[in-house]
Amino acid sequence: MAKGITSRSEDYSQWYNDIVMKANLAEHSAVRGCMVIKPHGFGIWEMIRDQLDKMFKETGHVNAYFPLLIPKSFLSREAEHVEGFAKECAVVTHHRLMNDPNGGGIIVDPDSKLEEELIIRPTSETIIWNTYKDWIKSYRDLPLLINQWANVVRWELRTRFFLRTTEFLWQEGHTAHATKQEAVDETLLILDLYAKFTEEYMAMPVIKGVKTVNERFAGAVDTYTIEALMQDSKALQAGTSHFLGQNFAKAFDVKFLDENQKQEYVWATSWGVSTRLMGALIMTHSDDDGLIIPPRLAPTQVVIVPIPKPDAEIDEVAEKVMKALKEKGVSVKYDTDKQKRPGFKFAEYELHGIPVRLGIGKRDIENGQIEVARRDTKEKSSQPIEGIADYVHNLLEDIQNNLFQRALKFRDDRISSVDNFDDFKAILETKGGFISAHWDGTTETEIKIKELTKATIRCIPIDSKLEDGKCVLTGNPSKQRVLFARAY
Amino acid sequence: MAKGITSRSEDYSQWYNDIVMKANLAEHSAVRGCMVIKPHGFGIWEMIRDQLDKMFKETGHVNAYFPLLIPKSFLSREAEHVEGFAKECAVVTHHRLMNDPNGGGIIVDPDSKLEEELIIRPTSETIIWNTYKDWIKSYRDLPLLINQWANVVRWELRTRFFLRTTEFLWQEGHTAHATKQEAVDETLLILDLYAKFTEEYMAMPVIKGVKTVNERFAGAVDTYTIEALMQDSKALQAGTSHFLGQNFAKAFDVKFLDENQKQEYVWATSWGVSTRLMGALIMTHSDDDGLIIPPRLAPTQVVIVPIPKPDAEIDEVAEKVMKALKEKGVSVKYDTDKQKRPGFKFAEYELHGIPVRLGIGKRDIENGQIEVARRDTKEKSSQPIEGIADYVHNLLEDIQNNLFQRALKFRDDRISSVDNFDDFKAILETKGGFISAHWDGTTETEIKIKELTKATIRCIPIDSKLEDGKCVLTGNPSKQRVLFARAY
Repeated sequence: MAKGITSRSEDYSQWYNDIVMKANLAEHSAVRGCMVIKPHGFGIWEMIRDQLDKMFKETGHVNAYFPLLIPKSFLSREAEHVEGFAKECAVVTHHRLMNDPNGGGIIVDPDSKLEEELIIRPTSETIIWNTYKDWIKSYRDLPLLINQWANVVRWELRTRFFLRTTEFLWQEGHTAHATKQEAVDETLLILDLYAKFTEEYMAMPVIKGVKTVNERFAGAVDTYTIEALMQDSKALQAGTSHFLGQNFAKAFDVKFLDENQKQEYVWATSWGVSTRLMGALIMTHSDDDGLIIPPRLAPTQVVIVPIPKPDAEIDEVAEKVMKALKEKGVSVKYDTDKQKRPGFKFAEYELHGIPVRLGIGKRDIENGQIEVARRDTKEKSSQPIEGIADYVHNLLEDIQNNLFQRALKFRDDRISSVDNFDDFKAILETKGGFISAHWDGTTETEIKIKELTKATIRCIPIDSKLEDGKCVLTGNPSKQRVLFARAY
Repeated sequence: MAKGITSRSEDYSQWYNDIVMKANLAEHSAVRGCMVIKPHGFGIWEMIRDQLDKMFKETGHVNAYFPLLIPKSFLSREAEHVEGFAKECAVVTHHRLMNDPNGGGIIVDPDSKLEEELIIRPTSETIIWNTYKDWIKSYRDLPLLINQWANVVRWELRTRFFLRTTEFLWQEGHTAHATKQEAVDETLLILDLYAKFTEEYMAMPVIKGVKTVNERFAGAVDTYTIEALMQDSKALQAGTSHFLGQNFAKAFDVKFLDENQKQEYVWATSWGVSTRLMGALIMTHSDDDGLIIPPRLAPTQVVIVPIPKPDAEIDEVAEKVMKALKEKGVSVKYDTDKQKRPGFKFAEYELHGIPVRLGIGKRDIENGQIEVARRDTKEKSSQPIEGIADYVHNLLEDIQNNLFQRALKFRDDRISSVDNFDDFKAILETKGGFISAHWDGTTETEIKIKELTKATIRCIPIDSKLEDGKCVLTGNPSKQRVLFARAY
């Protein structure tokens, strides 16, 4: 176990905080609930962002930027939206500071009170649909496929690094369509895109499904979700894609002239993933020695450590290896620090999650070899210098696949099909994970189960088959199993 | 002149607004002084951002993210900083909305008043230096070379698209160094980087210089600037790089143990460019027909228009040309819309500033030719289809160079060396531009000249030679000419 990192078995929650802080991902700031994302953490976020952005653009989306501040009155336009979650937010009431005439330092100038308070966006449906009103007149203006990368603020009572912070970074897509079908298709296209991203890049398996009415985004007709399982057997909602129907179009009076010259309300979707993915990434793969970054999202995939320190001969080999790796598109760093010992460096790079470490020493060079250590399994081997770039390139793919398969097995081992409430409770207390069970379809039962067990319905999986059954709590008839779990 | 665009000669300011709105760069939002950056505008900003980000990383900088919200008390820690500009800002005083018990809709919950008000960052020196305090203990922790891409809010009385908006996007670099010399070197490294970017990518010539005490960033020891000249002969400050000395280190008590085991305050720089560059880009190159985007910053460099509309034969040629262009790294779009006429499309692409337009018609194909139109000069020519990708690739470079040379000539023609105040005033009223004149070095004179003429000292150019002279206003002795101009 790395110095200063609590083991997962001892205290999972503390382990998580230790990884975040010791691996230099983030730290608390002077402002309650807001964190500082440190360079190493931000570098990983940049990889996540750039890959998602590429995938959005490949599917025809463009970026834009809407204001941070939203007039208070906008939030109440879509009734469910404000009831649901838009109330815990930062409210701007004044626009000027002044010197206290009584010498008390800097105070808020009472004369600078705003006529209407402004809200820091908790999400941007309202301000965006207020804008779309001017952009959409005819079916020729549709679809609008717009995304925004932005910071948002939700005044959270309890915060945790990345998973729930007062301010967080995210992308929010807001699309407008001429038909219901097109909007539904878009919602599902993005759900698939998110699943592809989390599985192929984050190496994190997810279950695609639809939320119950009770768990739905406030203002949506349907909320689709991707749900992942963390190493403590708790579920985590990793991204959501909402079919908004015509709710926001009606709230902001956005109509268009269709091909038959008829005025219709516009159909909408919205979808987002956030820096929460950083938390999911950490909790899916990392171990008691530190962070593990899947190679495809690692800002630095390979580090070369000279043993015991750099000199002309080692430098020459290192430069050659770096060149060969870069030609293969592998990002690599050569650690030329002369002060720190190799053992110290090894521990540091393990802590920071660099996927592959290459050690180059005098004897290795004599033998025409390099020591290769992979972060996921911590296995070491000696490999010929000749062809090392090919070897490492393949190894990175191997690590990527191994991380996914490992997480998949872990997750699949923790999906339990359950038919009575005693088993339901027992499994939650023992192995946890997802419980596939029948539910009678009422919000009342859903809430009751949550009160009794702290488990919520994570989703009705998209691939869930219809079958007759009885609700695990009430025994009332059910047509379909749903997935329960305790969740972040 | 394009439909709906006021000519520059008629009303420059209206022309600018027309370009911004008609070319779909930005529009006003529902929040005073905040704009919506539309997809076409944001696409150009992404090009600017990505190129700068690449240059920052190539010079050893990394990105991080610090909180949007700053405790009010932080702003008063560096005395000059808050006096200078940190007062006109958005103040968050509450954190919750509620339903009005009297049925008046959504109101601010009075019980949610914050103990200490939070300010939306107008710039981040204070919160960053408060963080650096924990990061810097020893000379081994230095230098810190950190940049942040962020939104900031300054409560501006008068706003203009991109040039001055309440919220704007920018990057702010905040570096920490062990020695004064290192910090000064960093300040100048960034100044050069900014100048290289604006000249080589924006095709906008700039003059590098240092600001007078009066124009200095509040909290800086020296503020360096790049100054450009717009088509209405007014200057525009395009970016600044500040040597902060030990001011913020002292305000936030950031000390380090140097190599001799002595406690020293850390040396600092900060530097930034913003979406203001979008305004500079527009006003440097565009004409009465619309926007002109330098090829290196154009999200789409080439558009292919089928004449009169797409069909199998034209499609085939277009696909071939697109493939050849993409192989050369040229971004290209093929307009397959069948509704709009070619003439309409031509005007649209001119308005939107696409650098090169290719027209493909039946007769062109018969003749083995394509019509090539360049946006900068509006020249058209017929070119052989054979080798068209090479031709266009070279043409894009040619346009990039031509835009820079044209702007450079315009700027250089408007630098006037002046030795008496009558000439000073006369030139300001006639051709405008930069006036190189002697100044006695006092803030008093500087302010007096501003009152009399609305011209400010833009900078003391870095390459300004020492020479004996007399102040253009007071006749007092001067050692050096400085650059005056009316400015944005």
